[in-house]
Amino acid sequence: MLIVMKPEASAADIENVIRSVEALGYSGHTLEGSERTVIGVTGNKGSIDPAHFENLSGVADTVRVTQPYRLATSDPGDKYAVPVGNSFIGGGHFAMIAGPCALEDREQVFRTAKTVAESGAKFFRGGAFKPRTSPYAFQGLGIDGLKMLADVREEFDLNIITEALDEHGIDAVVEYGDCVQIGARNMQNFSLLRYAGQCGKPVLLKRGLSATLDELLLAAEYILSEGNPNVIFCERGIRTFASHARNTLDLSIVPAVQRMSHLPIIVDPSHGTGKNYMVPALSRAAVAVGADGLIIEVHPCPEDAMCDGAQALRPEQFLILSTEIERIRNTVSSPAAESADASR
Amino acid sequence: MLIVMKPEASAADIENVIRSVEALGYSGHTLEGSERTVIGVTGNKGSIDPAHFENLSGVADTVRVTQPYRLATSDPGDKYAVPVGNSFIGGGHFAMIAGPCALEDREQVFRTAKTVAESGAKFFRGGAFKPRTSPYAFQGLGIDGLKMLADVREEFDLNIITEALDEHGIDAVVEYGDCVQIGARNMQNFSLLRYAGQCGKPVLLKRGLSATLDELLLAAEYILSEGNPNVIFCERGIRTFASHARNTLDLSIVPAVQRMSHLPIIVDPSHGTGKNYMVPALSRAAVAVGADGLIIEVHPCPEDAMCDGAQALRPEQFLILSTEIERIRNTVSSPAAESADASR
Amino acid sequence: MLIVMKPEASAADIENVIRSVEALGYSGHTLEGSERTVIGVTGNKGSIDPAHFENLSGVADTVRVTQPYRLATSDPGDKYAVPVGNSFIGGGHFAMIAGPCALEDREQVFRTAKTVAESGAKFFRGGAFKPRTSPYAFQGLGIDGLKMLADVREEFDLNIITEALDEHGIDAVVEYGDCVQIGARNMQNFSLLRYAGQCGKPVLLKRGLSATLDELLLAAEYILSEGNPNVIFCERGIRTFASHARNTLDLSIVPAVQRMSHLPIIVDPSHGTGKNYMVPALSRAAVAVGADGLIIEVHPCPEDAMCDGAQALRPEQFLILSTEIERIRNTVSSPAAESADASR
Amino acid sequence: MLIVMKPEASAADIENVIRSVEALGYSGHTLEGSERTVIGVTGNKGSIDPAHFENLSGVADTVRVTQPYRLATSDPGDKYAVPVGNSFIGGGHFAMIAGPCALEDREQVFRTAKTVAESGAKFFRGGAFKPRTSPYAFQGLGIDGLKMLADVREEFDLNIITEALDEHGIDAVVEYGDCVQIGARNMQNFSLLRYAGQCGKPVLLKRGLSATLDELLLAAEYILSEGNPNVIFCERGIRTFASHARNTLDLSIVPAVQRMSHLPIIVDPSHGTGKNYMVPALSRAAVAVGADGLIIEVHPCPEDAMCDGAQALRPEQFLILSTEIERIRNTVSSPAAESADASR
Repeated sequence: MLIVMKPEASAADIENVIRSVEALGYSGHTLEGSERTVIGVTGNKGSIDPAHFENLSGVADTVRVTQPYRLATSDPGDKYAVPVGNSFIGGGHFAMIAGPCALEDREQVFRTAKTVAESGAKFFRGGAFKPRTSPYAFQGLGIDGLKMLADVREEFDLNIITEALDEHGIDAVVEYGDCVQIGARNMQNFSLLRYAGQCGKPVLLKRGLSATLDELLLAAEYILSEGNPNVIFCERGIRTFASHARNTLDLSIVPAVQRMSHLPIIVDPSHGTGKNYMVPALSRAAVAVGADGLIIEVHPCPEDAMCDGAQALRPEQFLILSTEIERIRNTVSSPAAESADASR
Repeated sequence: MLIVMKPEASAADIENVIRSVEALGYSGHTLEGSERTVIGVTGNKGSIDPAHFENLSGVADTVRVTQPYRLATSDPGDKYAVPVGNSFIGGGHFAMIAGPCALEDREQVFRTAKTVAESGAKFFRGGAFKPRTSPYAFQGLGIDGLKMLADVREEFDLNIITEALDEHGIDAVVEYGDCVQIGARNMQNFSLLRYAGQCGKPVLLKRGLSATLDELLLAAEYILSEGNPNVIFCERGIRTFASHARNTLDLSIVPAVQRMSHLPIIVDPSHGTGKNYMVPALSRAAVAVGADGLIIEVHPCPEDAMCDGAQALRPEQFLILSTEIERIRNTVSSPAAESADASR
Repeated sequence: MLIVMKPEASAADIENVIRSVEALGYSGHTLEGSERTVIGVTGNKGSIDPAHFENLSGVADTVRVTQPYRLATSDPGDKYAVPVGNSFIGGGHFAMIAGPCALEDREQVFRTAKTVAESGAKFFRGGAFKPRTSPYAFQGLGIDGLKMLADVREEFDLNIITEALDEHGIDAVVEYGDCVQIGARNMQNFSLLRYAGQCGKPVLLKRGLSATLDELLLAAEYILSEGNPNVIFCERGIRTFASHARNTLDLSIVPAVQRMSHLPIIVDPSHGTGKNYMVPALSRAAVAVGADGLIIEVHPCPEDAMCDGAQALRPEQFLILSTEIERIRNTVSSPAAESADASR
Repeated sequence: MLIVMKPEASAADIENVIRSVEALGYSGHTLEGSERTVIGVTGNKGSIDPAHFENLSGVADTVRVTQPYRLATSDPGDKYAVPVGNSFIGGGHFAMIAGPCALEDREQVFRTAKTVAESGAKFFRGGAFKPRTSPYAFQGLGIDGLKMLADVREEFDLNIITEALDEHGIDAVVEYGDCVQIGARNMQNFSLLRYAGQCGKPVLLKRGLSATLDELLLAAEYILSEGNPNVIFCERGIRTFASHARNTLDLSIVPAVQRMSHLPIIVDPSHGTGKNYMVPALSRAAVAVGADGLIIEVHPCPEDAMCDGAQALRPEQFLILSTEIERIRNTVSSPAAESADASR
């Protein structure tokens, strides 16, 4: 940590700060600038709370120079393939995950799963427990939905990714599915993250609507520090002033995460835009930016969907998109393509 | 709901939309404009999911004209006093709630409680379960902290408000405290909201960092619809691009909530700014805007605080602020003051 | 326009609103819902200011159903190729625009231009008038810089795009360059937009840091309504809470503009991210999303750049990126690729 | 400036950075931390562009420790009273500025001015040149409006504050008015700021919709550095995701500006909320937070206003509000009130 003093700080102020640093068992080193003094703190093992110094007389600001996460960023150069069911996400394995937003009934689920399997995708998504803004909206089929998902896995050899909203939900997803999804609204539900860290299944962690990169990495740290190394990040749009889409899909977080972490990051253009006319274009963009996968909503009849129909693709649209995605992937992953990136 | 057609929508498109409306059991009424047609939907009891119509041919947009919340906004004119311990918040009862961010040890807790009681405040806050961004940061004293709070209540006759992060935490707060706080990061943890709705104690519901007014009201609806009428809203700053404060305190939500709901809304200028030099100024503003209370962090020695020291007031600052707040309150609540408000 | 009445509005309120509508020369039509009445306004030619009605007794809200722009959205289906110098942007002509952020000296300009020409790009960018946040920062070479640009055009057959900050600047760019750039900070400098509408050269209009889609289209409307049909939109990142990139590049505005307007839209990943390690990835994404072009900063020696060096590519990086972009373009523009888009 | 190296930076990387620092004529000082090295740069007079170092091998980040503004923040302790016409704003002079958004006709202007004068306010506002999002909206009365304002000054002894959109507008306002307003959309129109710095009249500088504190101070710096010391800041709401008000009024910028600058800052609750029912509440809050003045829209008949009627107060509302404001001011400015502020 660096402690930046005000230009008008006195010698006594500086001495006092150094005494406070030493009282915590660290060392303080002064660096005299033309206008002000900066005090470097060394000797600490973890991060130091800036509150110890911010209110001392003469202190202008503190600057953190080491990052508070460790496990999520241990070795960004060695990309990790997260095992999910009988396949992998990341480490060179591109994942196409598709299915309806909410599970509604057996026919809808199986018709969609058939399309997903046909496309060559290896992962099926579908919500049995739905986090709805209103308590009066459809809340999902619950365990009955999870049983349908288990049947889908059996019949179509698709790996199942589905959301849990609480500890009981995680237990149920562990029983019936292959990967636990933690939704954007629960990204900082720290109790749930710890429980997910102990559940024994991989976790798909969606970025919160107003989460910074640091907060996303630290949410993963809650899961990793409980002994579960299998975390997949997911960008799903952030909340901004812009209203032409439901959220603003922030694709720049993909190279940012890849620069810092060995863990994979996928993109959800369906929630990220909320408009089905945008989904193909943003899916292509997500692949071109280098995402490790896509999670896309597909519904046999979007206008009858019980949830988020405005963003679902029809089966035929999804099949065409899948072949486009494949074509762009081949282009992007060729050796020459990579070499323009300054720092990857 | 209104369904706005595109200018180029055909008569067949319009007929098709009306058929879809009728298939759901509602009535559709066309309104011919100079450039386009609008279809009004009537006959529905609750809200209709716009996804039913948004993808139909010729549809430009849908407009919701009834709101999806009921209990939170049933009678905004008749302000409700939420009973908390041996006192009230709202309905004319202004609440000053103060205490440390995190409970650290008995001495810190009791020294702070003494100041709070001296000031005339009736509510004590202090976190035993802390939602920390990093898993490596201090997580709170847990049950030991709650026991200290119970002792504070005994000794100083202060009512206790403290945060719960999960169901176990709610059970514990119900046992030792007077009011369960749901933090900003859990505002859309819908399982936790339902549980809080069944807990039998009043709930202080903090606005999420990127929550809209609608989402805040609907989060309360989860608690209210479980049979708990005692919800207090709390504005604590939203996440914006601005960086001179830790969050942007949005005081305009106070009159907005008061216009729609009978439930009280208080303001947290400590988290709302994250800078102790701003806390007195924004506290004054919150009272002047008409908030039903304040929740303020006080620490006997902010520079030694284990959490958020940069935003805590010293005891002597807090005592001076309390008298200022009282003076402004007397000014604002005089009859003439109210009459300038156009619509309250 | 629709005027939505409150549930408790009286018959007299409704009559009064209709009288106000008729007083303005329009017609009002009531639509009775189960909970409230909506009044449709017809007979108007342009848009109506909602302020006429919002404060009338019983009015809950007003809803605009016709859009206030006309020229920018006249025929979105018939894409327009904007002529710029001896080439085109849009209407199927993909534009690669590259060069340094600021013109510094003849050697820097010509070395960069040589690289740009080698890559096959047809457009050269470089700032002679720089909008700097601080008055003490380098403000650009002015007319001397424009003369260098004119020489670049002569020697390398590149078309010149450069920014103007005021009317004098537009006059100068018209004399020496091929396309006037209006920067993000001037997107709502309405006097400048009108002047640009009269200048006789095409205009590259950058989206403001907090501009909505509507505001962007209406800024173009200022230029178009002065008789200049040649406007090119440019997404260059918006201001959000996220800090891992300098701005948040909002690629979803590309399909949104293309759905509404015949005018082209290009993307600036250099300003849009502010980090050169992100530029190749986001450039690929911008092409995959369907942008009509890219504007990229290239500098022979980014670490010596007088302005924004942290986002410039080295010449060799730019040449590799150009071939990648070409490859993705070929993939995306194939007929099958288009057909997945729901509504284009 | 501090240059923070990556943990894995080599000794050669560090030497190379120091060489680059010295090549610019400065000195570099290394500070060895437990995990990484930081290099302090000294010997510079003004600010250094971080781009010189950000791309060097081994560099993780740069941290600016001196601020790039000088004149706006020269002596925050000595508050400056800006002379405006025959009165002052700031330095203990609280300013109430009121009037219609747009000047419409002589009767509207004079009726409003009469109310403003009656209230005891000393400043009249009213737009003759209107920055409208759409080119088809009412653009203002122009010079005819300014002449009405001059007549208002004559008849009611009110000082005139009115907006200019371009250099011609500034010339006209200088001729007829007392203070030039630069609107939010022109806050970074640097050519206009320089011209305003030479105009000889005080300047009311409104914060841009997405302007940071730094950008606001630097915009003032453009005016100040041209020799005009008379700048008044104005908070008028920022653009966020929240939609219950038209903008989010950020009152925390008032203590932030006052901590750094000797210049006054006032608040515009009319544009800051866009809803007249919120204006009285947020006006009270702005006074309580310590603003040096208010600028409020008043219209004899808001429902007939040609611009922004939804946010204007009726004359009778304004008169009541004026007395409330006076009462709160008396409370806040008493000596005891000030003493709770930690750092003012």
